[in-house]
Amino acid sequence: MSKRVCIVGAGAIGSLYAAHLARVAEVYVFVRRTEHARALNENPLRISGTHNFSVRVKASHDPANLPSFDYGIVATKATQTEEAISKVGHLFDDGAVLSAQNGLGSEEIIARYTRGFVIRGTTFMSGTRHSDTHIQYELDTATWMGPFEPAHTPFSVVREFADLIVESGLKAEALEDARPAQWSKLIFNASVNSVAALTGLPHSPHFSDEEKFENLGHLLHALIDEGKQVAEALGVKLHEDPWEMNKIGAQTNHPPSMLYDVDHKILTEVDFLGGAIAREARQHGIPAPLHTALYRLIKGKEASWSYQWKPLHAA
Amino acid sequence: MSKRVCIVGAGAIGSLYAAHLARVAEVYVFVRRTEHARALNENPLRISGTHNFSVRVKASHDPANLPSFDYGIVATKATQTEEAISKVGHLFDDGAVLSAQNGLGSEEIIARYTRGFVIRGTTFMSGTRHSDTHIQYELDTATWMGPFEPAHTPFSVVREFADLIVESGLKAEALEDARPAQWSKLIFNASVNSVAALTGLPHSPHFSDEEKFENLGHLLHALIDEGKQVAEALGVKLHEDPWEMNKIGAQTNHPPSMLYDVDHKILTEVDFLGGAIAREARQHGIPAPLHTALYRLIKGKEASWSYQWKPLHAA
Repeated sequence: MSKRVCIVGAGAIGSLYAAHLARVAEVYVFVRRTEHARALNENPLRISGTHNFSVRVKASHDPANLPSFDYGIVATKATQTEEAISKVGHLFDDGAVLSAQNGLGSEEIIARYTRGFVIRGTTFMSGTRHSDTHIQYELDTATWMGPFEPAHTPFSVVREFADLIVESGLKAEALEDARPAQWSKLIFNASVNSVAALTGLPHSPHFSDEEKFENLGHLLHALIDEGKQVAEALGVKLHEDPWEMNKIGAQTNHPPSMLYDVDHKILTEVDFLGGAIAREARQHGIPAPLHTALYRLIKGKEASWSYQWKPLHAA
Repeated sequence: MSKRVCIVGAGAIGSLYAAHLARVAEVYVFVRRTEHARALNENPLRISGTHNFSVRVKASHDPANLPSFDYGIVATKATQTEEAISKVGHLFDDGAVLSAQNGLGSEEIIARYTRGFVIRGTTFMSGTRHSDTHIQYELDTATWMGPFEPAHTPFSVVREFADLIVESGLKAEALEDARPAQWSKLIFNASVNSVAALTGLPHSPHFSDEEKFENLGHLLHALIDEGKQVAEALGVKLHEDPWEMNKIGAQTNHPPSMLYDVDHKILTEVDFLGGAIAREARQHGIPAPLHTALYRLIKGKEASWSYQWKPLHAA
């Protein structure tokens, strides 16, 4: 019998999961906008680029229209996890939910709203969203998945879900411990996103330039080293070296999501990225002055968008 | 016999010096724009606000039209010191030149272009520039002046110039050592300007808010403490506590000059502010990770204004 899967949030990543899984399972998509649900119900979801196909999915913005599920994938921005999962968490009480989101802390939120198993996930997949029903698939990398420890998720559950994702045509890898992969990406992402958001630069060659004293490459190196020290102090061995990831990424001019967010004055994911490193470090008494400084600057930048001021003149 | 004084750069601060000194000395103003010189030659320079008067000054954008001087005040942005003083430095070979600029490093540049005495200066005077010939005088605080050590400037020269400034109606104080005042303002200015430039906030209550972990007040406190440690390691005792200066300033919503600069994509003074602290610290083997990090971020932001990019898509 076919498995029933719900994708929570259909941005580029959520839509990629939905379309692929719809070829091997019964897929529903839970979205925020009614027009988005209508567009998906009335038209096939089209994938172009690395893979090329169109497929039908069922979509709804109303939890009352959704059945219970074997599997879920939360693919909203980390800032929207709570709003989304609080409405549909109960539909996974007999299943398992994977977080395919940026940073640290989403699994904890998901676990508060479902009695089902929770799976730690990390992915580097990327795509460009051309419309509600057309996504261009770009980077096809594995989804690394592992048990979320506090939920006592059995490894067999992780492996079965990973098998289904592989069967759908995407890459996935079940890991006994997904934290090394998650922390590698967290350190990379926190460092690159914060610097991009504060400078206005995409992930450009500046990020690995260490020639002159003032060059940004020194700052990236220091941020990444600091992140590695936090991971090591927490007993997490990294899956990949974030500095090597940064050197490769710095050749792409890719605009990190947080750069898009600040350009459009949208609340960033910093609480789940640099802010998560800063808080983990603080909680365990590990110094992380640079991630903490950049975290506070980005929170200050967010505050500036709504701050109404006029100068008070002396004299 | 009346002294001859040249004001180099007639923004708000330069114009305030020029107008006041023109009441007790023969004042020339060296400016960059021909229209600015013409406006000043054809109209009186008007001061309103804290003081109210109009006065005639002579202005030129051409060094060939300027005589030699007893005193000079360089009041350009620190980024424009070299361009300006390289053209007129020789006119002060038998006189003394005061830097009334932000940050650290302008005196060194001035000393390269004149055989005259060089005077370290720091001022908190402020004004709003309504036009080329009308400045509103706001904060009337002292100009702190002292010998620039490498130029072996006699203290008597500093005192005589300070006396002339006081006679003109402004506040001035001759100090045997002007570095404590300069470093107090440097640490304050470097910390507040960098955070304002990176967050987009004016000098607002956020800057002294230390209630929550993410609040900017913690960052300001850490930046100021780091600056104090650098000053102490260099043997400079501070004139005022920059943290107290920050707490007062945070009630004003004053937009620091670097915020204006980044909003208008104008090269900032960061090399003379946070960058100067970072370089001094590095040169003397003192750690200054936070000022160094913010310095690199602002240099990255400046680089972003001219960086042409398009994303390189994988696949």
